[in-house]
Formats: sequence, C-alpha cells, structure tokens
Amino acid sequence: MKETTPNHTQTVDGWAARDSSGKITPFVFKRRENGVDDVTIKILYCGICHTDLHHVRDDWGITMYPVVPGHEITGVITKVGSNVTNFKAGDRVGVGCLAASCLECEFCKASEENYCDKVQFTYNGIFWDGSITYGGYSKMLVADKRYVVHVPDSLPLDAAAPLLCAGITVFSPMKHYNMSQPGKKLGVVGLGGLGHVAIKFGKAFGLHVTVISTSPSKEKEAKERLGADDFIVSTDPKSMKRGARSLDYIIDTAAAKHSLGPILELLTVRGTLVLVGAPDQPVDLPSFPLIFGKRNVAGSVIGGMKETQEMLDFCGEHNITCDIELVKPDYINEALDRVARNDVRYRFVIDIDATSEH
Amino acid sequence: MKETTPNHTQTVDGWAARDSSGKITPFVFKRRENGVDDVTIKILYCGICHTDLHHVRDDWGITMYPVVPGHEITGVITKVGSNVTNFKAGDRVGVGCLAASCLECEFCKASEENYCDKVQFTYNGIFWDGSITYGGYSKMLVADKRYVVHVPDSLPLDAAAPLLCAGITVFSPMKHYNMSQPGKKLGVVGLGGLGHVAIKFGKAFGLHVTVISTSPSKEKEAKERLGADDFIVSTDPKSMKRGARSLDYIIDTAAAKHSLGPILELLTVRGTLVLVGAPDQPVDLPSFPLIFGKRNVAGSVIGGMKETQEMLDFCGEHNITCDIELVKPDYINEALDRVARNDVRYRFVIDIDATSEH
Repeated sequence: MKETTPNHTQTVDGWAARDSSGKITPFVFKRRENGVDDVTIKILYCGICHTDLHHVRDDWGITMYPVVPGHEITGVITKVGSNVTNFKAGDRVGVGCLAASCLECEFCKASEENYCDKVQFTYNGIFWDGSITYGGYSKMLVADKRYVVHVPDSLPLDAAAPLLCAGITVFSPMKHYNMSQPGKKLGVVGLGGLGHVAIKFGKAFGLHVTVISTSPSKEKEAKERLGADDFIVSTDPKSMKRGARSLDYIIDTAAAKHSLGPILELLTVRGTLVLVGAPDQPVDLPSFPLIFGKRNVAGSVIGGMKETQEMLDFCGEHNITCDIELVKPDYINEALDRVARNDVRYRFVIDIDATSEH
Repeated sequence: MKETTPNHTQTVDGWAARDSSGKITPFVFKRRENGVDDVTIKILYCGICHTDLHHVRDDWGITMYPVVPGHEITGVITKVGSNVTNFKAGDRVGVGCLAASCLECEFCKASEENYCDKVQFTYNGIFWDGSITYGGYSKMLVADKRYVVHVPDSLPLDAAAPLLCAGITVFSPMKHYNMSQPGKKLGVVGLGGLGHVAIKFGKAFGLHVTVISTSPSKEKEAKERLGADDFIVSTDPKSMKRGARSLDYIIDTAAAKHSLGPILELLTVRGTLVLVGAPDQPVDLPSFPLIFGKRNVAGSVIGGMKETQEMLDFCGEHNITCDIELVKPDYINEALDRVARNDVRYRFVIDIDATSEH
C-alpha cells in the first residue's frame, strides 16, 4: 500500500524482517511528509520487546512483511507541523505502541486510545492514510502529535526507551487497580522486562514487594539489585504455603503457559491478579481458589497516551528507568535470539545512531 | 465424633448417604440440645443443590460418611435459646451453607463469614463442639442464631428454599460488582439452578438480560418463561460475533470445563465476568480477550449472613422465588440422578414432611 501513497516521500534507513525466518536486515523505506499535526523524530534509541520477536517470526499469523519492528522509541524532535503547539524542535520525546485510533469513541475521548477498537500500532498497523506502519528499528519517525510524549530531562533516553511499552504495561494496571497504597503487599510473577519495572514501581508506590519465581537463584538479584522485600519460589510448596493469603495484588508477567491456581492462593480475599504477559496458550484457571477467595483475575494491555505521559513524569520524579543492555543495530538478530531464551537483564535497547560508527 | 458429645441428645429422622455409591437412605441421628444462642427449626423444605451430589459421591475426596446433605433449608422455629432476641417460636426462617465461623476475623466482623478461613458448613463440617454437621435432608435442625435468616411472609417456603444457596450465590457478586445499575447489560451463562435466578435478579435490578447457552432450544423458555431479553447461542459464531463487546457483566454458572475466551469477547472493555459455577477442571483462560479488553474474571462463593438476609428481603419485595419441582423424600435418589443429567427446571426441593403421608 505504501508505494501508492503519494506523500510518502521521505527516505529512511531502518531494519526489517522480510519473512517468517525473522532475520533482520537493513531496509530502506519511505515515510510520509510531516503533516500539520505531525512531529518528525530523529530516533536515538529503541527497545527490543518480546512482541517484536512474535511479529518478526509471525507467531500470531498477522505479520505484514517487510516488518520494521520497534515500539519503545526515544529521540529528539526535528520538525513540527503547524497545528502542533506542545512540542518543538529539540524536545526529547518518546513513542510507544500507538500510531492511530478513531479519535471519536469513548476510549479515544478518555485518552484510553489503547482500547479503541480501531487502534493501530506503531508497526504492522494501518495508518489513517492506508499505509502500513513501520516502527522504531529505524533512524526517523513521523508521528501524529497525539501519540507522542515528553521524556523528562532527568531520564536518560536509552534506559527510558523500554518504559514506553514495558513501563506503561505495568504502570497502567497498578494505577487502575489501586496498587499504589503504601504498606500494601504486591507480588510480581516473573523477573523479566516487565517484572523488573513492576518491582521499581511497587517500591516507588511504597509497597512491600514479593517476587514469585521458579528460580531460587534469582533471589539475591531480586532483593539486592532490584530492591524486592521478599521472594517466593513458586516450585517450593513450603515457600508457597508460607505466602498463602499474604498478598493484596499480583502482577503476573509470565509469558509461558501456566496455572493461576497456586498463585491465586497467595492473594488475600478479594485480591487482584493482573495478567500482563501474553501467553500463547490459555492459562489454567481453577475455580476453587478464585471463588473461595472472591479473587479477581484482570487483564490489561499497555495504556492510553495521557497515562503514558503520567507514567514518564512519575519515572522522572522517582528516577525510574529500565535496566538495559545497549546494543548496536548489527546485534539485533543475536539480541532477538537471546530474548527468545530470556537471556537479558532486563531489556535490550538499540543504539540507533551507532550504525554510522561501525 | 458426635457419639462422644454428651449434649447431643435429640433424636432426629433424616436421610444420608453411607458411602461413595451416593445412595440416600433413611438415617436416624442425634443433634445437640438447643443452647443459649441456638434456635431449633422444624425443617419443612430443603433444596437439592449440585454440591449435594458432589458430596454424596465423594467427588472431591472430602466427604465424611454418613453424610446428611442439604443447605437450602426453610422451616419454622420451635425453640429459641435465652440469648436469642431476633427470633421467636413460629418464625419462618432459612438456613444456608454456613454453620460456624471464627467470629473474630475481619470477615466475621464484617458479616462476610463465608470468607472466614475457619468457616464450617451446614453439612460435612466440624461444629464448634467438635461434632460433624448434618444438613437439611432431615426433620429438625439446631442452628446458632447468627447463621439463621428470616424468610419474608410474601415468599412461599418451598420455592424460597433454594434462594439460601443458589440465590445468594448469584446475588452476592451482582451486588459486589455493581451489577444493579438499571439499563446496563447482563449476560447469564448456563440456564440452570443458578442461571434462572440470575435472570430474575437481573430483571429486578432493571438490567437488560441476555442468556448465553449452548442449546438454541432454550431460547423460548429463557425469554417467555424467565423474562430474558436476548439469547446468544454460544456454539454459533454468528450469534457470538453479533454480541461482541455488548455486555457490561456476565454471570457464568456453567459447571462443566469450558473456555472463557469466546465468552469474554462478549464483554465491553473493563467488563466483569463472575464465575460462580465450580467446574472440577480448570477453565481455559486465553490472555488476549482478557488483556485487550481490560476485562476481569472474578470468583465468588455464596455470601455472608447480612447479605443473605438482604437478598431474601429483596426477593420478598420483588416476589422472586425459584422455579422448583417439589419431591417427596423417597424421590431423593432419582432427583440426584436427574440433577447429574441437568434434567430439572430448575431446582428440586424436598417436601420434608411429606414422608409421614406416604
């Protein structure tokens, strides 16, 4: 579709997968001219999200190739359209998962664009002009001002990049389900890109944070590096029994198929577990721990633009960033392989400009 | 244990299963003297709940034989203890699932005794004196006043009996999750003992009620007899697609293993599904319809005593009772077999006194 869109005249260097082998190679493509409501961003950093892996390998059968992944984008504004008043050239900004939405439904009106049923994503989406969207594994982006946020000066642009997806994914349900009451107890299942940020938000909200993990070896890391207060080994019945009915909320970031039963037993009566990972297979939900504890299992996906800005401002005040491994673009394929094996603490971020220095 | 409890001196005629064959036969046993906090009830009616079937057949491996089932009990008070001020002889009363709880925890203090972790049930439980509890398939019951409720005069005692379990099971989550806002849309999955009462509560709350069923043949019944507004055949993709994102809440009463995925798609964004059936096997919970709709799956089990009384008062005002098939005690085994095949519209109630008339 893009070739027939007349105002797509700007040439951009990026990186794309061409087929379900998922191999990423350099890719030159076109982006639209900067419209009256658009900003143009020189991309400096882009996080590598697990979702990128699903898309490049077409795990969900929805990939339109070539696909330029990347929805954890930070950079600097180089141009703004005539209707843009809240951004100017030189501003440090971020773009997350959203590229377009209907603007008219109740969710768009409430800045919950992520629940608009016409939402289009930053890559592998269809923009208003009919073109396929290309993401942040590239040197430049044109974005509608609505879907752009300011990055506070106190945050480094590289370690802030994954906040645009991993950060908002855990922040949004924590706010929505009222997990910000100091003294309450939060459990975090899974110590990865999402989990490690959930711990940081939990501590910033004044919560007692327990990491629930299958790996006893992660206890030291969870407590000493990330500040968790407690650690439960989910494969150890004694450890699980000790934790029964002890947690007010749980953020479950596990991406593999699992049973929610044992985890639900850790919640107090009326406790809420929020599922933010997206296991390919349905999780098992036994009814007894759900009904006998009047518990809730809730889902949540990223967040709206207003709360994404709120999240970044909160991170700015509390110096919350992601723990990252910065890599050059020619390392993307190896990084994706390592993401597939969960071999990263805790997020790869591509140093987009590093290419020219090779 | 009961034989060693010295004040268990009252002889009672009832019906019990002696082993996991589940066959019910007449059973004479002892109940305690009426204590200062107790009331004695001449049992007139007792509903047959699906849970009774699980217990008599020891499906959950927890049955203590002989078991006298029955926790949907109505009758008339014949005696009250010296500390009892809110009941008097002649009062029409009901007893549901609860026989005892700790009285001291936050849940007991809030009259949410059903979530007390020392809760004991009306049958197959252990009462404060160490005796095993025997339920309502019997002619007389001694109950602590805390676990007894008044049945409004406008309600017939036979058709009111199942409200003590089936009724409160659906009423409690409907109130807790705010499903009582007129004009909102409720879906009811499963048209059985719980489902048919959920429809009646829904209509009394002023909701638009849609029945979701695997059987197209139930549409007429659901609409004409029970007053449902709409009907979705869950096995028909067109019918399901037409209903997408249309319901604010769902009460899922299905007792068989099923996937929540297609049902969740019927909910609006942030909609809540409450699971009140207790499938033996875990239900399948696919993450996508949960997270992309910020939906909730909640559990709930019966209700506390305060809300049980509130539920009965509400039923009294709105003339809500269960649709029942009244049977004599010698029909209990056949009734249980028919419950196992879902062959009842919608609840069997035992006419306890009918025995003497045989």
